[in-house]
Amino acid sequence: MAVYTHVSAERIARLLEGYDVGTLVSAKGIAEGVENSNYLIETSENRFILTLYEKRVDASDLPFFLDMLDHLAQRDQPVPPAITDRDGRRIQTVEDRPACLIAFLPGVSLGEPNADQSGATGEALGKLHAALADFSNTRPNTLSLAGWHDLADKCGAALDEIEPGLGATVNEELTYLDAHWPESLPRSAIHADLFPDNVLMLGNRVTGIIDFYFACTDIRAYDLAVTHAAWCFDDAGTGFDAERSNALISGYDAQLRLSDAERAALPILARGASLRFLLTRAWDWLNTPADALVTRKDPLAFLHRLQFYRNADRGIFGG
Amino acid sequence: MAVYTHVSAERIARLLEGYDVGTLVSAKGIAEGVENSNYLIETSENRFILTLYEKRVDASDLPFFLDMLDHLAQRDQPVPPAITDRDGRRIQTVEDRPACLIAFLPGVSLGEPNADQSGATGEALGKLHAALADFSNTRPNTLSLAGWHDLADKCGAALDEIEPGLGATVNEELTYLDAHWPESLPRSAIHADLFPDNVLMLGNRVTGIIDFYFACTDIRAYDLAVTHAAWCFDDAGTGFDAERSNALISGYDAQLRLSDAERAALPILARGASLRFLLTRAWDWLNTPADALVTRKDPLAFLHRLQFYRNADRGIFGG
Repeated sequence: MAVYTHVSAERIARLLEGYDVGTLVSAKGIAEGVENSNYLIETSENRFILTLYEKRVDASDLPFFLDMLDHLAQRDQPVPPAITDRDGRRIQTVEDRPACLIAFLPGVSLGEPNADQSGATGEALGKLHAALADFSNTRPNTLSLAGWHDLADKCGAALDEIEPGLGATVNEELTYLDAHWPESLPRSAIHADLFPDNVLMLGNRVTGIIDFYFACTDIRAYDLAVTHAAWCFDDAGTGFDAERSNALISGYDAQLRLSDAERAALPILARGASLRFLLTRAWDWLNTPADALVTRKDPLAFLHRLQFYRNADRGIFGG
Repeated sequence: MAVYTHVSAERIARLLEGYDVGTLVSAKGIAEGVENSNYLIETSENRFILTLYEKRVDASDLPFFLDMLDHLAQRDQPVPPAITDRDGRRIQTVEDRPACLIAFLPGVSLGEPNADQSGATGEALGKLHAALADFSNTRPNTLSLAGWHDLADKCGAALDEIEPGLGATVNEELTYLDAHWPESLPRSAIHADLFPDNVLMLGNRVTGIIDFYFACTDIRAYDLAVTHAAWCFDDAGTGFDAERSNALISGYDAQLRLSDAERAALPILARGASLRFLLTRAWDWLNTPADALVTRKDPLAFLHRLQFYRNADRGIFGG
């Protein structure tokens, strides 16, 4: 849960004076995302999110994220672009942090999506990728194979404190992925973190795709694999839901046809996706005090997914 | 900063079905208050706050707080009443906690109120007390003299860990207040915690008085003294602001005439108010890990106020 930096109402009112968005009516710190401080702001004209970027977002990456949002918003994708101030600037400095005023989108993040909602998310991701085909900015994915090796090294022997044998499992998986990771699949800018938290819905309709702060240039089908790992299991990662899985893949494929090579690569991409969240959660787990007020997310929920994908029949991805 | 209990969007949508308030459009966990979990909820018809009462609010006190809000709302005071569901109930159970759906009020909490805003708050408090003259429910103030003794005993020698000599100062003050605390001043239901956090404003206008969870039956002028301690100093409690003080007292007096006895008692009531926040902050300070994500509020900010009120010319309260 967020809101790390306090911003006074007076400071927010002064910030809004630089924009053509009306005057401040309400401002509430909200628990949105885990990386940044966010305020839900109401003005006399509209609602907005004010985001202050905390240390986990590199300010030099912001133009990539904001250009990507602008590109998508111009193509009618349900994403929240940054608002430009009267001088055409999107990035401000508030309380010594880079900050953006961002469009507010309606919709709620689901706790337990059903198959229809999973299908709608697959469609939304397919449309997102299609709309990104002519987006030329690039940002390396620092959380791909090389990044996973770094994280595994940094965690080191402590991985076995989380679960005995976890270090060996991670190393074995890294060796496998090093040897078999696909290199020639279609690439583009991807979201790379499309958990249910980051999809706003009204009923079965996707009204918002948010939190682009892991977006990067990588294999397009890897984004679908991340989304699959995020949407098609229970929280513990033990209960796989075949209906949600079929709906997600079909929804995507209906918007952006998966090639045979992409479909064939989904199992290994999903193994990589599972390892990515296993490792980032393991690192956070080892570096967050057990009594801290932030919730530590269980790394083992992604070990369970990894084990599922290792053993799964390739038919689960259809085709 | 709050949001202790996670409530899923699905649970909120189901809760709203019991009310005649439209369907769920958005729900954001907000950092409002320090005692409860709060969600800012938008429906197809309106906006609301959903509050889950955590352990510091006793469920048996809720009817008093809610009746007080209803009483005030019926008398056009800017307070947020609880919404009744289709069966006429105001209190629900959500995630095993008592919970209320509450009206949303516009306005922002000021970080640094000016004299006009302080005056408007004095007027609002005077009107609030006037409107409570015929409110007959009662709730003892557990944070008055007897409660301060209890807190001082529970903190014990640890008070001197916060500042050497603090324990002796507290005991000396308790002895003085025991001997001189006024007993015959007008009493009514009071807010008892009217810090700038709990007053919503638009410009110089009070649009909301919120967070009634310390409300109780006590000396009316004590509520003004609490508000004085809360509004007329800088955060550190060292910089007294005479303009804000004069505006606050005059604003109150213009709405509800202070008797000579009330005015004469303000210095001792303000000493009591300072001791109350000194002691509750000291207790929290001693019982909150220094690295916790909740901000520990400095108890010494109210030691400084206590020292100010001990030495202040009684003329600062006008008359």
